[in-house]
Amino acid sequence: MPTLSVFLDVPLAPKTRGRLLDDFQKDENPNKVYLAYEVCMTGNEVPWLPPVVPKTLMKLAHDPSQSYEYLPEHGLEAFIHVATELLVGRHSPAIVENRVGGVHTIGGSGAIRLAAMFLKDWHRGPRVVYLQPSQKEQHGFIFQEMGFIIREYTFWDPYQLASDTGKLFDVVEHAPERSIVVLYNPGSFILPRKRWIKLAKVMKRKQIFLFFDVPDQGFISGDPDRDNKILRYFVSQGFEFFCSQCFSNSFGLYDERIGCLIAVALSNEALLHIRSQLDSYARYMWCSPPALGSRVITTILSNPALRVEWKKSLRGVVENIMLTREKVKEKLRLLGTPGSWEHITEQDGMHSFLGISVDQVDYLVTKKHIYIPKTGQFNLTCINNQNIDYIAQSINEAILAIDSPGSHLPR
Amino acid sequence: MPTLSVFLDVPLAPKTRGRLLDDFQKDENPNKVYLAYEVCMTGNEVPWLPPVVPKTLMKLAHDPSQSYEYLPEHGLEAFIHVATELLVGRHSPAIVENRVGGVHTIGGSGAIRLAAMFLKDWHRGPRVVYLQPSQKEQHGFIFQEMGFIIREYTFWDPYQLASDTGKLFDVVEHAPERSIVVLYNPGSFILPRKRWIKLAKVMKRKQIFLFFDVPDQGFISGDPDRDNKILRYFVSQGFEFFCSQCFSNSFGLYDERIGCLIAVALSNEALLHIRSQLDSYARYMWCSPPALGSRVITTILSNPALRVEWKKSLRGVVENIMLTREKVKEKLRLLGTPGSWEHITEQDGMHSFLGISVDQVDYLVTKKHIYIPKTGQFNLTCINNQNIDYIAQSINEAILAIDSPGSHLPR
Repeated sequence: MPTLSVFLDVPLAPKTRGRLLDDFQKDENPNKVYLAYEVCMTGNEVPWLPPVVPKTLMKLAHDPSQSYEYLPEHGLEAFIHVATELLVGRHSPAIVENRVGGVHTIGGSGAIRLAAMFLKDWHRGPRVVYLQPSQKEQHGFIFQEMGFIIREYTFWDPYQLASDTGKLFDVVEHAPERSIVVLYNPGSFILPRKRWIKLAKVMKRKQIFLFFDVPDQGFISGDPDRDNKILRYFVSQGFEFFCSQCFSNSFGLYDERIGCLIAVALSNEALLHIRSQLDSYARYMWCSPPALGSRVITTILSNPALRVEWKKSLRGVVENIMLTREKVKEKLRLLGTPGSWEHITEQDGMHSFLGISVDQVDYLVTKKHIYIPKTGQFNLTCINNQNIDYIAQSINEAILAIDSPGSHLPR
Repeated sequence: MPTLSVFLDVPLAPKTRGRLLDDFQKDENPNKVYLAYEVCMTGNEVPWLPPVVPKTLMKLAHDPSQSYEYLPEHGLEAFIHVATELLVGRHSPAIVENRVGGVHTIGGSGAIRLAAMFLKDWHRGPRVVYLQPSQKEQHGFIFQEMGFIIREYTFWDPYQLASDTGKLFDVVEHAPERSIVVLYNPGSFILPRKRWIKLAKVMKRKQIFLFFDVPDQGFISGDPDRDNKILRYFVSQGFEFFCSQCFSNSFGLYDERIGCLIAVALSNEALLHIRSQLDSYARYMWCSPPALGSRVITTILSNPALRVEWKKSLRGVVENIMLTREKVKEKLRLLGTPGSWEHITEQDGMHSFLGISVDQVDYLVTKKHIYIPKTGQFNLTCINNQNIDYIAQSINEAILAIDSPGSHLPR
């Protein structure tokens, strides 16, 4: 008997992400390079994994006492504990006063989602969220779904070829009172202490709600504590805030989707109330999170020897990134590429602006098979000994071929 | 400077689940027994784990070639493949015709959620979902959030002390055309073949959309293929349907949250469209699912030797459950407990109705410290050699103390 489908008019869903990667994968040129991976790569073009992680995985697999029962809705308590300590520091006033805690989430994006649900229901203020363009696609979308208006702000000045975190003053001054301001990767915010003090005062006066987004603590300086100085300054100043924490880059277990939403509250009572609500959002969203990744991280961070090993490997990665920056700059200098390339070494972290124009990016992609997003932000760990010469020569070629105003040239 | 919280009036979220477990945990009586665990327990009162699982975990942990990069949004392709084959059978017409596929989800509840999102957007029919009371709390809630009206139906007859799956005829006859009917644990539906043929005809005529919910394939008969005969019958009859698959009980890795949403479509083109939409819901919900659990299951199901080992251990668990049923019935007989207790051995699967009244359940909980949900459905695997005598004596005592009409007594 022939049947009529109840789904006659379901269209093919549009592909919203991954077009650049698709193009790269289809490209048959032997020199092709993809500089837009989200993950941290090794010189052998595989995702980086701290050596202590597979060791810990083996240790856990051999533990006969391991229970695999469901975690509670808020996740693994011991993991939340080590994640909180890693973020705010073991001797943080918020820990001493028992007013910081969190919920174990499905990746960093899960943390953003829980926070957005909570803020929609309980934040007293305008429905306005300020965030950086690189966050718009994923995080902006989540906030928009919850009814928030997104306002973008950027620190990168394509003319000066420099990051000016002082622009945060403008954002805060112009934002409506009680707005939500997302500070992505706060470890990269370089501002003199005096300016931070002033900024904190303005934020407090305007009751700005801070939302830190920490994608890979330790990837700026190689030292997780140093990377979180600014966040900890705000803790010391008695701010209440949320922080989404992602462990994908720092522990390499991307496919285990390990994240945490940390809440710093003004009192223990407030924290308990906030956490009970977050728990109920988590139960609603995914019942309980997956355990393995959190167990690996808890094991490493709770064991002084393993923790030292992890921190050492993290430092190694960051040193490699710094070395790659130096090499790229030096190669462009030797090629006599016009313009200043100081901005390559002046930025930090895994992703950076190449500081070339959209047309030059387009030239690299179409003529040289070097895949970079239109924003010109690329992943430093995708550059290795095999492709660095080709990349530098191609950048040189693009600059000579297309002299765009307001691109790489300092003014 | 003192600060006013923006979260002044966040209340403590009400506790919606786990009250019975809380009461059990607080109970200091040495004889206390909890018969309401969701998970499959061993005789030693720990969650059951097929021995092949820790072995596979070790194997995977020792694989130096393992990549831990993000899975795609739809999850691990190889896992979806083995999950589909397990569900519909390797030689299913739907596989031959390339019109069955799925999305790897965060547990069975994640599968329900994706399906509900999809049905909300694309199902042409009334917003009515029929489901069984045991599914109402978790699954009903998800459908309700998506704007569906929930109608409950039950096969359990507390007077006859029997399951009458023939009642499905009433449900289907009275449901509005194109309603959604969730069949939970279809392996437990015992109906003569002739009746199924008739039922399928009525369903097709009324364009009922079937939604199978398979919580633990293999737990009814000990044979995963035999448990899914009815589902496969509907495949062979050219039905399109969804099926949420959960692997928690069958592989014991509860804390890895492994599920799958399988779609059987009418054509390959329809499947591609449906899957592309499901992919986008998955991306929206959790970006990509966690990998470990799916890798363990894929390894076991793809390897003939490991698969046999898993199936053997599954059979062992089911035989144990059957033995426990026999023992409980025999002990009640020896105690001379009034009434017929045939229904204990006539039901199957891990959970069963004890067939006593609400007042008798209450007596067991409050007087005997035996924790059973108000529905009277209990988990057979929570009964073991240490507690079986106490449980049987307590049931006997409850029956003698409270003679409720329409409870255990056959009419």
